[in-house]
Amino acid sequence: MARNSLGREIPDSFNGKKCIPYKDPFSIKPEGDRASRPVRRVNPGQSKILDGIREAIIASGLKDGMTIATHHHLRNGDALLNTVVKEIDALGIRDIKIASSSIHPVHAELIPYINKGVISAFECGVNGLIGELASKGEIRCPITVRTHGGRARSMVTGEVVVDVAFIAAPICDIYGNMNGYYGPSACGSLGYAHLDAEYARTVVAVTDNLQHYPVSPVSISQTNVDYVVEVANLGDPSKIVSTTTRITKDPIGLLIAKYAAEVIDCAGLMKDGFSFQTGSGGTSLAVAENVRKKMLQYGIKGSFGSGGITSYFVKMLNEGLFQTLFDVQCFDLDAVESIGSHLNHQEISADMYANPFNSGCVVNMLDAVILGATEVDVDFNVNVNTESNGYLLHNTGGHSDTAAGAKLSIITAPSIRGRLPIIRDNVTTVTTPGETVDVIVCERGIAVNDKHEDLKKELLKRKLPVKDIRQLQSEIINITGEPKPLEFEDDVIAVVEYRDGTIVDAVRRVKE
Amino acid sequence: MARNSLGREIPDSFNGKKCIPYKDPFSIKPEGDRASRPVRRVNPGQSKILDGIREAIIASGLKDGMTIATHHHLRNGDALLNTVVKEIDALGIRDIKIASSSIHPVHAELIPYINKGVISAFECGVNGLIGELASKGEIRCPITVRTHGGRARSMVTGEVVVDVAFIAAPICDIYGNMNGYYGPSACGSLGYAHLDAEYARTVVAVTDNLQHYPVSPVSISQTNVDYVVEVANLGDPSKIVSTTTRITKDPIGLLIAKYAAEVIDCAGLMKDGFSFQTGSGGTSLAVAENVRKKMLQYGIKGSFGSGGITSYFVKMLNEGLFQTLFDVQCFDLDAVESIGSHLNHQEISADMYANPFNSGCVVNMLDAVILGATEVDVDFNVNVNTESNGYLLHNTGGHSDTAAGAKLSIITAPSIRGRLPIIRDNVTTVTTPGETVDVIVCERGIAVNDKHEDLKKELLKRKLPVKDIRQLQSEIINITGEPKPLEFEDDVIAVVEYRDGTIVDAVRRVKE
Repeated sequence: MARNSLGREIPDSFNGKKCIPYKDPFSIKPEGDRASRPVRRVNPGQSKILDGIREAIIASGLKDGMTIATHHHLRNGDALLNTVVKEIDALGIRDIKIASSSIHPVHAELIPYINKGVISAFECGVNGLIGELASKGEIRCPITVRTHGGRARSMVTGEVVVDVAFIAAPICDIYGNMNGYYGPSACGSLGYAHLDAEYARTVVAVTDNLQHYPVSPVSISQTNVDYVVEVANLGDPSKIVSTTTRITKDPIGLLIAKYAAEVIDCAGLMKDGFSFQTGSGGTSLAVAENVRKKMLQYGIKGSFGSGGITSYFVKMLNEGLFQTLFDVQCFDLDAVESIGSHLNHQEISADMYANPFNSGCVVNMLDAVILGATEVDVDFNVNVNTESNGYLLHNTGGHSDTAAGAKLSIITAPSIRGRLPIIRDNVTTVTTPGETVDVIVCERGIAVNDKHEDLKKELLKRKLPVKDIRQLQSEIINITGEPKPLEFEDDVIAVVEYRDGTIVDAVRRVKE
Repeated sequence: MARNSLGREIPDSFNGKKCIPYKDPFSIKPEGDRASRPVRRVNPGQSKILDGIREAIIASGLKDGMTIATHHHLRNGDALLNTVVKEIDALGIRDIKIASSSIHPVHAELIPYINKGVISAFECGVNGLIGELASKGEIRCPITVRTHGGRARSMVTGEVVVDVAFIAAPICDIYGNMNGYYGPSACGSLGYAHLDAEYARTVVAVTDNLQHYPVSPVSISQTNVDYVVEVANLGDPSKIVSTTTRITKDPIGLLIAKYAAEVIDCAGLMKDGFSFQTGSGGTSLAVAENVRKKMLQYGIKGSFGSGGITSYFVKMLNEGLFQTLFDVQCFDLDAVESIGSHLNHQEISADMYANPFNSGCVVNMLDAVILGATEVDVDFNVNVNTESNGYLLHNTGGHSDTAAGAKLSIITAPSIRGRLPIIRDNVTTVTTPGETVDVIVCERGIAVNDKHEDLKKELLKRKLPVKDIRQLQSEIINITGEPKPLEFEDDVIAVVEYRDGTIVDAVRRVKE
């Protein structure tokens, strides 16, 4: 057991791997060469088509103890991972590690296969019941939570070797060229799966929309795809992307959004070349709309919008407010339509998006990012993984990546959630270290990290409710009361890996 | 010394590497994993901009004995390779290997640096004076001729390790994102350079069109670019791409083109899904035009056109005759304009285009390809490297790759060139083995490889002038007389590597 620089107790090892305690966001230097995969040869006339997923598992040579991956662009509509695991079980294969880009509530179907020993670890964070049951000690299956950039890094460095990737392909030709733009399971960008295509030792494309050769634009190339399997459907299209994402109507959310846009403005970032990222939540979209209005008002031509892309960003691209969208994941159908028709709506891999270990990722060039939180603490540390009940319920996504990369990372959250204060003495779990978090905005005030004195002054000048974070915390606790401290057992059910591979926190079993 | 399966005498080793004699087009199996390159880290705020090429050479750590590369999309307009070598010389670095995608006549400026020991080998084929002087024994510098697909393979397998790649970027941002579509040195696709970006151990982008972040569409990504250098110009735009490429007006060329289109038709390939490649020569374009007319006449919707792309293929894309263009290199300005504006005009890497050692390259899916020749022989072997004077004057390009991949490879050439017969008992140099060549078309007749009896019958049925290749040869020699046999010294100045890495032929010094 060691303490990392944030004071968190980190186990010496987890899931058979040595844990390196987190130190700071930028100093770890990579060593060695990029990971690789076998050189293959496919001659003219050879077919890649296999009859089904079971045949593909057999052809891939998957064995006990190996690692598989899927991507989460189909989100809660994904049926592929559940199907693959069922087939693995049917073949009697055990001790499989899951290194997907994320796990959604729909994958609660995997729980029996964890109990049966088919799945022995998650090399990725999880959303939903799996994390909850792990937190309660009801299932035993180590979980290594990774950021989007951290997953890319883990594959590029060879920390995680994916033996077989199963890539859900919304449109795919018989030779494996695919994109996510068209078809009943259209999801837009396949950005997370690019890594699987490049680094998995065997790649299986699975599609419900098999086409004659060729499919273009080519997001993932035939040169990396070993087998192609046709299935009836990849999942439930209604859950793949929301048909629309809407700005919040909640007055608290709207106030937060107004403050956040003012913070960006006060930071002096609202000028030509401005770059920006938000999530898909109603408050995030409201910030985007406020930012858009300010850009129009000031006559600013921005450079790029990035991340999960929403219709608001598409609108800003089409209005010329952004020159380029860098899209690792589409959040709504407008984004899907745009990426399939606009040359400057650029699909990017998770490596290009956020991997700290390459010659420079997109988040490094971000001016401002709007992020959420389940909790923050007086050191500006942010928790998005566990809820205030201590259960591991959420994956990290690009949270720590964008916070580290952006000039200005702004956390927006209501001051009270579920009768609990958003600001704590210590967050239950550190997802994103406070040294990469610049501003916390809630409806009761704006807390600015001490390193931004100028910003603080400018906000005060404009009569915005800047408050010391401890002052803001006590105002909130005056209403909510002190939250009851959580109690944990000693056993670690998950580690939260920082994007550089060090361990930023451990998640322990909740005492019942 | 060994004889390969074509009866060619192959040295045991060349340029310090063991030579494996060519056996057949498809049986060599790759071993091991793909080559790699160092994992890097670039933090927010780090700049990649360097003051000049000399600074980039220093930063790259280039040392005696290392290998550099450039790409040849700027063709005979390229100034970058000459400049880089001059700077390498000025820094006192010696024994550098050149592994560019090709060398053009403009690079004759390198000759003094060969003599001075700055350049010690070409890990690529050459066009022009360098090969001629090597053939005459006037310079000593081993040349390993590679196909486009073979170069990709050599980098993917690690047979050739490029220590530093200098990538000419017609438009590039400060973080290294680039494409070839826009700017004074616009060349269209950067397909050959994709390999350098992925596999060179250090990557330097050199641009005469430096832009704010970001440049999109992203052909080569920031994640692979270590340094960015701005220069006044990358070369002579007037020589980068021809403003237009025109159909031949020569009646011999037109007749050949007519026959070639008939051959494709008779082979039964003219149906929906038809895929096609030609070069940029006047006869090739005439074939393309004939094929286009037949497709319109038959109401055929093709699948893809590939290779070096010309305005004819762009027209066919826009007319819906092709669904997709797979573009590794743009041959004219219409192609450049199209690739920068059409989503289905798809830039592809040389790996995707033609590497035999991946999970399937584009040439594997080709129906028909039209190729040239300096000589063919009665075994259908084709020479495009040496001229009938024995001088090594031409690089291979995608010749052997497409011949191996396509269902039907058609060689078009006039029966007599420079008073010499095109058909020989034995070609001076085998570039492309006869077992991958299906038909030879000249104005005096059509010779069909014996494996295509049905095609022969169909051609005869349609009253086309099918002739046995020896009969065609003697008809031609009746006019030209027997060509004087060439005499060679023993020393090997170049080897011609087949796409799989085996040696298909050796080029020897010409006896003066």
